[in-house]
Amino acid sequence: MNEVLKTIRNRRSIRKFTGEIISDETLKTILEAGFYAPTARNMRPTHFIVVRGSEKLSLMAEAMPNARYCTEAGTAVVVCGDREKDVDGYLTEDASAAIMNMLLAAESLGVGSLWCGVYPRDERVEFLRIMCSIPENILPVGVVLLGVPAEQKPAPELYEEEKVHFEVWEA
Amino acid sequence: MNEVLKTIRNRRSIRKFTGEIISDETLKTILEAGFYAPTARNMRPTHFIVVRGSEKLSLMAEAMPNARYCTEAGTAVVVCGDREKDVDGYLTEDASAAIMNMLLAAESLGVGSLWCGVYPRDERVEFLRIMCSIPENILPVGVVLLGVPAEQKPAPELYEEEKVHFEVWEA
Repeated sequence: MNEVLKTIRNRRSIRKFTGEIISDETLKTILEAGFYAPTARNMRPTHFIVVRGSEKLSLMAEAMPNARYCTEAGTAVVVCGDREKDVDGYLTEDASAAIMNMLLAAESLGVGSLWCGVYPRDERVEFLRIMCSIPENILPVGVVLLGVPAEQKPAPELYEEEKVHFEVWEA
Repeated sequence: MNEVLKTIRNRRSIRKFTGEIISDETLKTILEAGFYAPTARNMRPTHFIVVRGSEKLSLMAEAMPNARYCTEAGTAVVVCGDREKDVDGYLTEDASAAIMNMLLAAESLGVGSLWCGVYPRDERVEFLRIMCSIPENILPVGVVLLGVPAEQKPAPELYEEEKVHFEVWEA
């Protein structure tokens, strides 16, 4: 199994962090991975808002229960899509692809990560919009927490034969 | 730069294929990568329909202009989400994460791939629903073409400083 397949297999959602903050260089490498995800019609609508201030992280932990680990992670990245660059309604797909690349880049660098869902939950979209002064044409799709992991989880077996169908759907 | 970062950087959308079909083993490895993507609340709603028959591929090439390379690719995978396992509206995100993992697994194995958008384009959703007998509770989100690449593309520079914001949105 090559390194990519191993990384895909070993990446897990991390919810315990040491409190140590990842370096700016590591963060930039992870953001760069986000930029390398494909986007519909190559419109490149994705933006990234890096949140590290303790006041904002505390607010986020309050407002988004699924992101409550953000204060220990130390870095939260709000991944957004620019609606003005969305021709066909693929903004969510584009941002999700960027997030998946970021999670794998993080794993490859020994950084723990957690994908916290935002869109289509209105209350989370609105909270982030206010906290980060996000304009109306920009949609926050998800938040990625990044930090030094304080837990290790084994890779489970996840292949499910019954969810692979050939030519037509078989129930 | 480690192998994962290199693969993220080098993966490109491939639209020229040799016509040779990838092996069942390679296909299974790529599908497995899809299963290893995270899903909201770990509900694992994602299903995969493998389309290889020349009749269906010809139909797909007609009906979905963005997938017209499928006949040369030889393998198309319809990535779907089960609405009955969708608690919060994250089906599109879950399927997109699976697709991104598949594209990277493909790249790591020398397989060319193309992500063809489906949802929310109704006419594509309905075409696939009919062609593959997909039930109402299952939503086709995207199609991944897989094949032996007949083109090589260099990695562009994609990091854009002005799309990285700190703490708050800066236009």
